Amino acid sequence: MGFHDKLASAWRATDSMLCVGLDPDLGKMPRSLGREPSAVLRFCREIVDATAHTACAFKPQIAYFAAIGAERELEQLCAHIRATHPNTVLILDAKRGDIGPTAERYASEAFERYGADAVTVNPYLGTDSLQPFFARAGKGVIVLCRTSNPGSGDLQSLDTEGRPLYERVAHLAVDRWSSLGEVALVVGATYPAELARVRSIVGDLPLLVPGIGAQGGDVEATVRAGRTTNGYGMMINSSRAILYASSNDDWVAAAQRAAERTRDEIRAVQA
Amino acid sequence: MGFHDKLASAWRATDSMLCVGLDPDLGKMPRSLGREPSAVLRFCREIVDATAHTACAFKPQIAYFAAIGAERELEQLCAHIRATHPNTVLILDAKRGDIGPTAERYASEAFERYGADAVTVNPYLGTDSLQPFFARAGKGVIVLCRTSNPGSGDLQSLDTEGRPLYERVAHLAVDRWSSLGEVALVVGATYPAELARVRSIVGDLPLLVPGIGAQGGDVEATVRAGRTTNGYGMMINSSRAILYASSNDDWVAAAQRAAERTRDEIRAVQA
Repeated sequence: MGFHDKLASAWRATDSMLCVGLDPDLGKMPRSLGREPSAVLRFCREIVDATAHTACAFKPQIAYFAAIGAERELEQLCAHIRATHPNTVLILDAKRGDIGPTAERYASEAFERYGADAVTVNPYLGTDSLQPFFARAGKGVIVLCRTSNPGSGDLQSLDTEGRPLYERVAHLAVDRWSSLGEVALVVGATYPAELARVRSIVGDLPLLVPGIGAQGGDVEATVRAGRTTNGYGMMINSSRAILYASSNDDWVAAAQRAAERTRDEIRAVQA
Repeated sequence: MGFHDKLASAWRATDSMLCVGLDPDLGKMPRSLGREPSAVLRFCREIVDATAHTACAFKPQIAYFAAIGAERELEQLCAHIRATHPNTVLILDAKRGDIGPTAERYASEAFERYGADAVTVNPYLGTDSLQPFFARAGKGVIVLCRTSNPGSGDLQSLDTEGRPLYERVAHLAVDRWSSLGEVALVVGATYPAELARVRSIVGDLPLLVPGIGAQGGDVEATVRAGRTTNGYGMMINSSRAILYASSNDDWVAAAQRAAERTRDEIRAVQA
């Protein structure tokens, strides 16, 4: 089953558009777990098992593992998600982008080494830099379009012959990339007007939407702007607000409650 | 000594603008080295020691290590370069780009974990995504501007209010980023006219120029387009043409000869 079908199944099975982002920060994790790379694996496994019923997708952010030399732990975490929650979509958040032969290596990293269903990529280098990702049959390629950070407009909002750059990326996604593979786009919840604009361009294409929770995006505005006619269409990511809901002994239960609450907030608007 | 000063010293000490790219491909390396991740370390160390006198910089491409789970070998390679060739600039080619807190983790990966002097980054997310890299005093931040691949124009050549996008990145580099840290730009040798245009915008800012050798960029056109008034100004990268100069037992000597030849070709035009 390819990425688009697996995601559609996950939306229906969980009735949830929540994506749980796995950004394990040794400085914010419960002290009782210790400060070794192995603590990151134990932390993320507990979060995953406590929130799997609330989420259509898990999204480990590779930078948090790479900064502390925890690639083996990321491999084990991905293997755990695939084995224990095989119907949940596994997204490697890596935002890779490089020339063809190098992109081929990054595709191996995401899809063979970590066994992800989808990977986030950066479009700045153009279509040929994305080709090695699209060439992996059934794998998802989630391209940055309008990111959630304050400075995202520096380049993405520049007027390019009558359209902002991020709209041009949205057009490329439907007009060109959707014939090459299973594409999706990243659009931040912090820009609901732009999210609505992208939705109007890309039809039913799935959107990965970071920026609710710690980044301040509004859930109601996000769901209204980005849902599709069947009520789904998005992977709405929350990382820090779930992972660090409590720094006390109740952190697993607190994370579960935060995930359920966010799923329910999304559902309430979606109906 | 910061990145800009270290690079200027390396240019003078070696009288070379050659940058040796370390893209270790198990499928192309001499079979006698074996096919384990440790072979990658042995291969790169031999190349480094045989070519250090020819090069102002070494540039390991992290994707080649990540695809095969060889991060420990990359750590050891970087430690070897720093210890044995301390005056040669060490560039981690990673093309990272992410929102602030995540970019902070990538900056740790490049500068603390691997001890690089500089890292390549992608500007699509805007200035705030680059800030954590600039904030590391003395470290180099090499921003993608006009990349060497065939499809680089898809976004980079779009007209943005009277200028192509890559020129806007060049203007951001001098007008905004150069006050935040030690910036440089990536401009491909495969586009000498654009290289000349970027040089005219950025003054003496260093340029990392991939695309000669296997990618087909012309050395003479590159040097004429990108040199500065002191004759230097570029890190002209060659990877495959040096690393795989021979697949026989003479591969170390062949790599050395290829590096010396490329350095000499560059010097001949530079004078």
